Amino acid sequence: MKVEEILSKIVPINEEIYKQANQRTSKLIMPYRAMGYLNDISEQLCAIYSSMSLKIENKAVFVMAADHGVAEEDVSAYPQQVTCEMIKAFIKGNATITVLARLNNCSTIVADVGTKCDLSEKEPIGQNQFIIKKVKNGTNNFAKQPAMTKEEAYNSILTGFKIADEYITSKKLNLIATGDMGIANTTAASAVGACITKNNVELITGRGTLITDDTLENKIAIIKKSLNLHNPSPNDPIDVLSKVGGLEIGAIAGVILAACYNKIPVVIDGLISTAGALLAYKLNPLTKQYMFAGHLSYEPGHSLMLSYLGLRPILQLDMRLGEGSGAVLAMPIIEAAAKIITQVATFDEAQVTKSSL
Amino acid sequence: MKVEEILSKIVPINEEIYKQANQRTSKLIMPYRAMGYLNDISEQLCAIYSSMSLKIENKAVFVMAADHGVAEEDVSAYPQQVTCEMIKAFIKGNATITVLARLNNCSTIVADVGTKCDLSEKEPIGQNQFIIKKVKNGTNNFAKQPAMTKEEAYNSILTGFKIADEYITSKKLNLIATGDMGIANTTAASAVGACITKNNVELITGRGTLITDDTLENKIAIIKKSLNLHNPSPNDPIDVLSKVGGLEIGAIAGVILAACYNKIPVVIDGLISTAGALLAYKLNPLTKQYMFAGHLSYEPGHSLMLSYLGLRPILQLDMRLGEGSGAVLAMPIIEAAAKIITQVATFDEAQVTKSSL
Repeated sequence: MKVEEILSKIVPINEEIYKQANQRTSKLIMPYRAMGYLNDISEQLCAIYSSMSLKIENKAVFVMAADHGVAEEDVSAYPQQVTCEMIKAFIKGNATITVLARLNNCSTIVADVGTKCDLSEKEPIGQNQFIIKKVKNGTNNFAKQPAMTKEEAYNSILTGFKIADEYITSKKLNLIATGDMGIANTTAASAVGACITKNNVELITGRGTLITDDTLENKIAIIKKSLNLHNPSPNDPIDVLSKVGGLEIGAIAGVILAACYNKIPVVIDGLISTAGALLAYKLNPLTKQYMFAGHLSYEPGHSLMLSYLGLRPILQLDMRLGEGSGAVLAMPIIEAAAKIITQVATFDEAQVTKSSL
Repeated sequence: MKVEEILSKIVPINEEIYKQANQRTSKLIMPYRAMGYLNDISEQLCAIYSSMSLKIENKAVFVMAADHGVAEEDVSAYPQQVTCEMIKAFIKGNATITVLARLNNCSTIVADVGTKCDLSEKEPIGQNQFIIKKVKNGTNNFAKQPAMTKEEAYNSILTGFKIADEYITSKKLNLIATGDMGIANTTAASAVGACITKNNVELITGRGTLITDDTLENKIAIIKKSLNLHNPSPNDPIDVLSKVGGLEIGAIAGVILAACYNKIPVVIDGLISTAGALLAYKLNPLTKQYMFAGHLSYEPGHSLMLSYLGLRPILQLDMRLGEGSGAVLAMPIIEAAAKIITQVATFDEAQVTKSSL
């Protein structure tokens, strides 16, 4: 399947069911919409699933991993080998994302879509699965040349799509989340974000792994230089991805497309995942209807990117880890929203007296 | 046991373990404190339990219900009978708090500590328990006379304490939450909040069950009139509680004392629960060390009351229901914080290369 074919099959969420959900919400035994944003989430869930009887049973987070040529420009506090070392921790299950996913009964699927690591696929450990689908052994250094070819950009999206589509179908997933791993990927995500949202690089770019003032200054300079060098078109997501993106960012866009294609909600994590969400949105704006923003990252660019998308973050805990951590942490809130609209009684059902106003 | 005796047995959380937790956090395989507020929660949990090996297994929310004499002053959108009708929904399990508690594997203990209802204790239904320990059949209308005597104020606190203490001990609870039910109780909570935090009544008072402009104006006037009439002393919580409080607000303070007494964390819900937290804090400031603020309510007074306590809300979802809903919804975040410090590996354990900076 080609990306264009996937995009053509994404449809709007169910407006009629949305109205039904809205009506039921106003009848629940609580002051009018007293659960605030949770009531909105309930309604969006109904519209996504085209159903008033929500059952969120099978969840997974897709952690897309890749390396970045731009890492050689001294933009991160960690050396590139940490990408591989963290993947090993994911497989072992003692990294943050795997700990959080296990707690929330969520499977973890880690995919190497383009690292420089020499790892082998292993038997799944618990709920964790590691697969290798390398588009390329890391991107090129986009401070000097485009990160990847347009064909590789398409491939990265298709790779993420295929991985998620297969699991969604075979495991009957009904809620998925996006995650990332890749040293220097806040540099790529900030470049994608600055280009698409048309915000200043200084406003978008943050300290990522907690870099010093000097490294931050260098990171900003590198992103500015790269955007000037390649001049990607903000309205052409493939152009942006190929010039200043990352293989995991493309794959995350593909995971999001798979959720939309299969009509299930997708929880977006922080800066890197939201760069993927921007690409998906630019490929087809309907994708936004299937998205939830798991959290607001401490990274300054994240709020600007979420604002561009018009997404309200569920959590605001000053987290800045990535891996999918903020998305998986938000899953219980989304599950709660599903229970509220399906299990809380209406005034009539519970014989509770309505408001006199 | 007397309230003074309980207060004298509340000790500070473990400073030594707090330091150990702080050290471990800085070694976890993530950029320094990349989980933001969650890292803080982890450390506070360790210090509360005096342990680096956290196990949150048994949870309960204590929903304290009572009626308010001030309801006759036309301050709510709902008639007083709704207190009893909602208790029936709690028992049946189709109210918001019971739905959320069930989802999060949390028991619900509903206690009538002073309603006008003629209900009988029933066999527990699922995880829900209903008990009757009436201090008084609703408070007096504090627009005309003190809400209760000082003896009744002490009794309401002791009642909440005894209920929670018994369950904490018998069910080996290690995480509890506070909740409330009682028509017109935002009026009492706002009066308590305005008095103790010394904020203007206009700033503190909100629309509660979504009252109209006229009713809000009346609600503010009633609170002002009552505070002028009784002139409660902000530093004497028993004085405040007896003059403009509520029986469930006193009982919530008692539930909080029980958590501190048993050295377990307590998650505070919204406006009403935070009024109880203010009383507990004024009785003994050490109580704050055991508290987590589950969420920030849409009610304007809540942020002012949390600021006074110096508590950061975990969730910010524009909720304004009460019942304990915001506290129970925050429980998975607290449980996640416990898992992060206990299950995520350190750089040394996972053989991940440390930051070069």
